[in-house]
Amino acid sequence: MASASWNRRHVLSLADFTAAEFETVMETAVSFWQVLSRRTRKVPALQGLVVTNMFFEPSTRTRSSFELAAKRLSADVLNFAPGTSSLTKGETILDTAKTYLAMGTNLMVIRHQEAGVPGAIAAEMDRLNTGVGVLNGGDGLHAHPSQALLDLFTLGLTLDPEQPTASLLAGKKIALVGDILHSRVARSNLWCLTACGAEVHLAAPPTLLPPGFADAFITQSPIDIPRAIVQHSTLAPALEGADFVMTLRLQKERMAQHLLPSLREYHQGFGVTRDRIQSCQPTVKVLHPGPVNRGVEISSDLMDDPALSLISDQVTSGVAVRMALLYLMGVGKKGTEE
Amino acid sequence: MASASWNRRHVLSLADFTAAEFETVMETAVSFWQVLSRRTRKVPALQGLVVTNMFFEPSTRTRSSFELAAKRLSADVLNFAPGTSSLTKGETILDTAKTYLAMGTNLMVIRHQEAGVPGAIAAEMDRLNTGVGVLNGGDGLHAHPSQALLDLFTLGLTLDPEQPTASLLAGKKIALVGDILHSRVARSNLWCLTACGAEVHLAAPPTLLPPGFADAFITQSPIDIPRAIVQHSTLAPALEGADFVMTLRLQKERMAQHLLPSLREYHQGFGVTRDRIQSCQPTVKVLHPGPVNRGVEISSDLMDDPALSLISDQVTSGVAVRMALLYLMGVGKKGTEE
Amino acid sequence: MASASWNRRHVLSLADFTAAEFETVMETAVSFWQVLSRRTRKVPALQGLVVTNMFFEPSTRTRSSFELAAKRLSADVLNFAPGTSSLTKGETILDTAKTYLAMGTNLMVIRHQEAGVPGAIAAEMDRLNTGVGVLNGGDGLHAHPSQALLDLFTLGLTLDPEQPTASLLAGKKIALVGDILHSRVARSNLWCLTACGAEVHLAAPPTLLPPGFADAFITQSPIDIPRAIVQHSTLAPALEGADFVMTLRLQKERMAQHLLPSLREYHQGFGVTRDRIQSCQPTVKVLHPGPVNRGVEISSDLMDDPALSLISDQVTSGVAVRMALLYLMGVGKKGTEE
Repeated sequence: MASASWNRRHVLSLADFTAAEFETVMETAVSFWQVLSRRTRKVPALQGLVVTNMFFEPSTRTRSSFELAAKRLSADVLNFAPGTSSLTKGETILDTAKTYLAMGTNLMVIRHQEAGVPGAIAAEMDRLNTGVGVLNGGDGLHAHPSQALLDLFTLGLTLDPEQPTASLLAGKKIALVGDILHSRVARSNLWCLTACGAEVHLAAPPTLLPPGFADAFITQSPIDIPRAIVQHSTLAPALEGADFVMTLRLQKERMAQHLLPSLREYHQGFGVTRDRIQSCQPTVKVLHPGPVNRGVEISSDLMDDPALSLISDQVTSGVAVRMALLYLMGVGKKGTEE
Repeated sequence: MASASWNRRHVLSLADFTAAEFETVMETAVSFWQVLSRRTRKVPALQGLVVTNMFFEPSTRTRSSFELAAKRLSADVLNFAPGTSSLTKGETILDTAKTYLAMGTNLMVIRHQEAGVPGAIAAEMDRLNTGVGVLNGGDGLHAHPSQALLDLFTLGLTLDPEQPTASLLAGKKIALVGDILHSRVARSNLWCLTACGAEVHLAAPPTLLPPGFADAFITQSPIDIPRAIVQHSTLAPALEGADFVMTLRLQKERMAQHLLPSLREYHQGFGVTRDRIQSCQPTVKVLHPGPVNRGVEISSDLMDDPALSLISDQVTSGVAVRMALLYLMGVGKKGTEE
Repeated sequence: MASASWNRRHVLSLADFTAAEFETVMETAVSFWQVLSRRTRKVPALQGLVVTNMFFEPSTRTRSSFELAAKRLSADVLNFAPGTSSLTKGETILDTAKTYLAMGTNLMVIRHQEAGVPGAIAAEMDRLNTGVGVLNGGDGLHAHPSQALLDLFTLGLTLDPEQPTASLLAGKKIALVGDILHSRVARSNLWCLTACGAEVHLAAPPTLLPPGFADAFITQSPIDIPRAIVQHSTLAPALEGADFVMTLRLQKERMAQHLLPSLREYHQGFGVTRDRIQSCQPTVKVLHPGPVNRGVEISSDLMDDPALSLISDQVTSGVAVRMALLYLMGVGKKGTEE
């Protein structure tokens, strides 16, 4: 299995991912995608390794996806449940991570409500020379790399089901609609899509997408590659001629924060509907990371139309892409620990 | 393994089960029962398939039984935990089910406090041509088919440990005692036992068994077979000459609803005790689906008497019967998805 | 694999463990310790057996350790979650245990906030001739045998990494510091260390270590062997010349109970620091069962110093020792149930 362009112990952010690395993830995910459609859906790749899911911020959906990915690679899975944890007994997060390390954990998937926690744990694992890999399962507003990678894989599969690659994205127009300011999914997708050569058009009300956001974002790029992001304060110019429309989940607490007048008004301005995507490419498809507030970010009939919606495909891609990430991060460990 | 009379994708209710289908479940369960007593208690029957337990209404007992059954068939198991779920984020139940579908779920076991939810999910799975099978793990007051089938298997094993069949029930008198009106276990048992030819005698106070209940129940039968149900408002005539006494769990909230004067008074009228079952057949056995309120539905010493109580046997039967159901529902999937 | 000196169905306490039994645990743990460092970290020893973790008192750390140990022995694992259990429906603890027994459980790991619960369940399992083994995962202030055994294994590995034995402890001075009165870890360690020939020096303020504690403890010994325990009301004499310093977790509720003036004052009197252990042997090492209140029982820098702290080693030892215990308790079952 190809892992030519892969030299990472951790996956914490996509900001410094190169096009070659995106291709490596795509290639690896394709092979697991094929495994999933065979009768025997398991491979012994990570047999004997321990994957620990540490979800300080609860999420059944993402946790199940990682759990299934790990099991299909024949790893043993431990789930850390914050509700019944030592954290309530005053233990620090780093000490919790070190406890799971000492039990024999080889890979940690970490979700936390505060940005930077997976990175801090990864740094500690490196400082201690543990060899353990940390996969960021979503941290605050910072990053959610596996979500953006499964979105990329879903786009690639749509563009060429036989040979999905990251390079297929080059020159595509992608509309990214919704609460961009408060979205780690948006940030990870921006790094990913632009690195693959897509032109990303942002659309949201100014409270969710402040003026200058796109420019400020680009200047933070840790690697020197061209990134094309265009910012709009209305929906129409973002949708016009778009190849794909990515909608983002709207947290209902945004209204309590007076960032939104009402869900109904939001939907009138920025809800994606069958009518509105008429101005897109005829082959346009719509995505959403889930869970969806039906009739808010996207109309219910559009969401359920298999000819237009890729929402289920995203979930399916998730298992293959997470298998690919765990494999790329873990396969070396297995080989060298004899 | 025989599956001649099996043509169901879902198991939602036993109302339209034929005698032949009950025999198929029995035959299949017997073979797994034998597996469970061997040194290697696992079979590779469902290797590579994913069984997702979606217990919206929590239940450790039933969930563990399904989990163990699935693991012994070598399936991968995902457990959906409602407390930490996307449901709190506004996702609909159907969308949650579709998410697990998209991850690769082949069989869903669904428990929900409202009647009809497993059926609604099954209908959606069929509408989408998913091939996914839905097993009702208990829904509202509607049905709990795996519980009634494990009761049937327990009765069959008691009547003929060598060759337990559904037809052994023909002509047997079975007393069903307790909160019949509010019991999905009672309803599923009524469909099952009557279809196998048993005569079921109901006994409960009128608040838990309204006049005319039995007649109204029979008229709802979706298939045209004779069903014998006799209704009593006292315990004695139900017990007289009974081959088996099935007690039902009493929810303590029935008193708050003024349906019962007190637990003590209920026990005086309808509690099953060693004394009272003297009027049954000499070979009588007592059942309870658990968890038991000791000294309410059944006296503590009777419950613990292995010569008279089948309560532990019911739990053991549960694993074999659930293996049989998952096998019958799942085996086709495995064969055809190459 | 040696199991010459092993004749126990249950492990409930270490009070009556002989030196030979401690050696058997050590030998068995060593072999699993070696398994854990190999590429294939699993052994088929308990394939087909069911290990049920019943943690009435929640604990992610200990439960994960047992879960991983059972999985690495290829057992199927059921986790009982008290929050969603039948206990809230009025079922007794014994009935819950019997339900898991009837499902096919072979080994139960039981943690409960009240002393004696694992013993009561074990007695019931024996009364019913079930053959099921019960491992006490911590009960009230009574015992936590697997913790003390993993501490023993950690000490043995430190004294002789090639051939760790219990007999290496003979004549060693071990300081046991902290809330001894309220600690099941302390009690299990006292039985274990003294039986192996170590001299244990207790140090704590009188509210956490009443005068006469050591003498009273020794008189409870169920077996007639010499046990050396010395009691101090200050830290210095316990540390002087010590080979190992075992610190205990301080529950913060002790202050609410007016047993402690403040955490700061406790640390001033009994916190173990780099300075204070200067009076110990030059090879001294420090232990803590976790989770640690940093800067209370032990200073943060000392805890993190791999040259002085064995805290991570204890966690790693835990998996090997729990594999050993489950193996010793379970291996007979597998052989005889054909």
